Amino acid sequence: MALAESESSDARDIGGFPMNAEQAEQCYPSDRQPSIRIIMMPRDTNPFGTIFGGVILSYIDLSAAIEGQRYHSGRLVTVAMDQVVFKQPVFVGDLVSFFTETVRIGKTSVTVKVSVWAKRHSTSPTFVYVTEALVTMVAVDDQFKKLTIQKHS
Amino acid sequence: MALAESESSDARDIGGFPMNAEQAEQCYPSDRQPSIRIIMMPRDTNPFGTIFGGVILSYIDLSAAIEGQRYHSGRLVTVAMDQVVFKQPVFVGDLVSFFTETVRIGKTSVTVKVSVWAKRHSTSPTFVYVTEALVTMVAVDDQFKKLTIQKHS
Amino acid sequence: MALAESESSDARDIGGFPMNAEQAEQCYPSDRQPSIRIIMMPRDTNPFGTIFGGVILSYIDLSAAIEGQRYHSGRLVTVAMDQVVFKQPVFVGDLVSFFTETVRIGKTSVTVKVSVWAKRHSTSPTFVYVTEALVTMVAVDDQFKKLTIQKHS
Amino acid sequence: MALAESESSDARDIGGFPMNAEQAEQCYPSDRQPSIRIIMMPRDTNPFGTIFGGVILSYIDLSAAIEGQRYHSGRLVTVAMDQVVFKQPVFVGDLVSFFTETVRIGKTSVTVKVSVWAKRHSTSPTFVYVTEALVTMVAVDDQFKKLTIQKHS
Amino acid sequence: MALAESESSDARDIGGFPMNAEQAEQCYPSDRQPSIRIIMMPRDTNPFGTIFGGVILSYIDLSAAIEGQRYHSGRLVTVAMDQVVFKQPVFVGDLVSFFTETVRIGKTSVTVKVSVWAKRHSTSPTFVYVTEALVTMVAVDDQFKKLTIQKHS
Amino acid sequence: MALAESESSDARDIGGFPMNAEQAEQCYPSDRQPSIRIIMMPRDTNPFGTIFGGVILSYIDLSAAIEGQRYHSGRLVTVAMDQVVFKQPVFVGDLVSFFTETVRIGKTSVTVKVSVWAKRHSTSPTFVYVTEALVTMVAVDDQFKKLTIQKHS
Repeated sequence: MALAESESSDARDIGGFPMNAEQAEQCYPSDRQPSIRIIMMPRDTNPFGTIFGGVILSYIDLSAAIEGQRYHSGRLVTVAMDQVVFKQPVFVGDLVSFFTETVRIGKTSVTVKVSVWAKRHSTSPTFVYVTEALVTMVAVDDQFKKLTIQKHS
Repeated sequence: MALAESESSDARDIGGFPMNAEQAEQCYPSDRQPSIRIIMMPRDTNPFGTIFGGVILSYIDLSAAIEGQRYHSGRLVTVAMDQVVFKQPVFVGDLVSFFTETVRIGKTSVTVKVSVWAKRHSTSPTFVYVTEALVTMVAVDDQFKKLTIQKHS
Repeated sequence: MALAESESSDARDIGGFPMNAEQAEQCYPSDRQPSIRIIMMPRDTNPFGTIFGGVILSYIDLSAAIEGQRYHSGRLVTVAMDQVVFKQPVFVGDLVSFFTETVRIGKTSVTVKVSVWAKRHSTSPTFVYVTEALVTMVAVDDQFKKLTIQKHS
Repeated sequence: MALAESESSDARDIGGFPMNAEQAEQCYPSDRQPSIRIIMMPRDTNPFGTIFGGVILSYIDLSAAIEGQRYHSGRLVTVAMDQVVFKQPVFVGDLVSFFTETVRIGKTSVTVKVSVWAKRHSTSPTFVYVTEALVTMVAVDDQFKKLTIQKHS
Repeated sequence: MALAESESSDARDIGGFPMNAEQAEQCYPSDRQPSIRIIMMPRDTNPFGTIFGGVILSYIDLSAAIEGQRYHSGRLVTVAMDQVVFKQPVFVGDLVSFFTETVRIGKTSVTVKVSVWAKRHSTSPTFVYVTEALVTMVAVDDQFKKLTIQKHS
Repeated sequence: MALAESESSDARDIGGFPMNAEQAEQCYPSDRQPSIRIIMMPRDTNPFGTIFGGVILSYIDLSAAIEGQRYHSGRLVTVAMDQVVFKQPVFVGDLVSFFTETVRIGKTSVTVKVSVWAKRHSTSPTFVYVTEALVTMVAVDDQFKKLTIQKHS
């Protein structure tokens, strides 16, 4: 099972990596507000000198939490992140934006879609589409028991 | 599409969260060597005082890279992480182990399964199963062009 | 001299601290794109448990550099930051946005105005105006000698 | 207004950058105790590989708080930092000292002058004057209401 | 006194630095479970680009605490670390393992031996013995008064 | 062997912990310049909320390197740290000073004594003696082969 999933993702990667930059730039959501926007620093690098994937995954998780807090002000914990496919690497000096939208509000959970774009460090800015993710969080109390989401009117 | 996936994951979460601790402990791979084992520190917390998911996702990514380097000594970049479902929260003081196994070696990619277990900070140790993930990396050169994996005999 | 400046700034602080929140919210630049937007984490706190001013000053400096790079792709070093007056404290969990605009491009320098707003962690979002700063950077070469800014047409 | 201030600061920078190193060394306050003295590490660098200004501004803020605590043991928050002009860049490996003196104690505020010197990493030590700043803090309670400074006899 | 100790340690270092790698690998405790295992990141480097000793010392201290918590679940503070001799340097990308064993349980203290091994980042793995340390911790209450260790049956 | 050393150190700890604060303060080297002086931040804490020993050990190592660079400007690596006995705990908000003196310069090594003092966060300052250490470093080239120390005249 895992193998099958892996193969299909691998096929997609091979087909889609790297995404055509000009095409990507056309889709950049320049009119949307990011949940997080941050520049990649040398301290975010892996032993090869590039930004390691975990840094991006961390910000995806934080972005989803920020979006989720629009619907529930208490404690939200991440219970699932759907498959994440990285289309482009991220470099030191890139300005990375995390755009979020709530795609589902359940009784106890919120699911948020996070789209990640990097602006390469350059005077002629290029936007590249890095990845997207679907993050599901549940509302919990202090003992980590599920709570009903309090929707705002 | 995203919604459908989200609903199914949500259903699984609701059914499986939290996993039964005694049952989990029976499965703890006490004879396996972890790729990473680390204690959770206060600086890893989110604004709610719990370990935020991004910290775990970062270590999953690093663990996969450590495993992948057994097959390729050059630069490996993460191109995909399959769905991750968190079964249990992680707390400050937990000792978290990341076990890895290579599940597929393609022409240019390696896919690694990462299983995450937490040992609660306690004198009567309890092991809880946190999550697992399937991470696919590709070998690339300095210009991020794909390379053929050099398998060792 | 220092004393005189200090007294006048002190007087302003006493008059303006804290700024009226409702009034501030009216001015929030909801249609502008931030240069940086980031959530405050527990690791950003000082020994009193609040976000220490240095964290905000660091992001102001980074934001100005991001803005400045629109006009010069080489190395820019900060040579001056004009007086910064903090109108409101920032807390763990606040989402802080740094808006920038270039206010002057000289032969070798760029001056950027950075406005800082915090969105309090809450389901009924409140935006508070934190501070603003004027940052001047100069373009330098590898030996830190000044260079002429290359304006883009 | 911002522009005018910016121009004058720009003029000063251009005239004073870099300060003559030999002249600076003569003024180094070798008989004073620093509030903070720390070596610059690789993790403090910006995408260009130099120490970014925000690191220095953070330590200036911390130094002022340390000095201020001599007069008030409760919570002090920074409300203003007067113009900061950087005379010299700071490099990885530099040992940076932050000297403080209290220049004004008001009813609810303390103003501290912070002078920053870097000792270049070298066997023939060179001290360079980096910058100085005037930081004003106010004493506040848990609700961030101003308190009267408790002066010690 | 200090001088005498220093000279003898110096003599040992000169004789033993570096330890023969092949010989070291034979002793690698491949059947033991590490208390901590972690990869060295660029952010762990000193101004010379190598891992600074303090990073290793920090993990030694953490490892000892993890081992000690098997015998006492309350607060343990480190009161002594016996002489540590570094046999081999550690590099970015090394996977470093900290093996622990309890060597003494006193009325109020636990002493733990920590052995440190690095696996060089390579497809043909080489294990090098880095150092070992003897860490003594005491159990204390909230006022840092010593407590009797509660041994488990 | 390890046990014997451990017992003797344990005995010393029990006798000397905590050192009498008033007595300690009399010895505080108020006329000496620290190699490092830094305030302890919340991010430096262990899962128990106190500063973990590794933070202090890291700064001891850095302090020794700073002192050693007065005698050799190239790469110095730590090869030994003699026994370290902690006399007092360190808390968030403490201002910690690391005083160094060179106690031996060998052909290829430098040995530095580091004394650590904490100033408790308070308006009536109390200085407590935390620990001292003897750190030996050797000069090495890029391949980590020992070099002769270049003493300055």
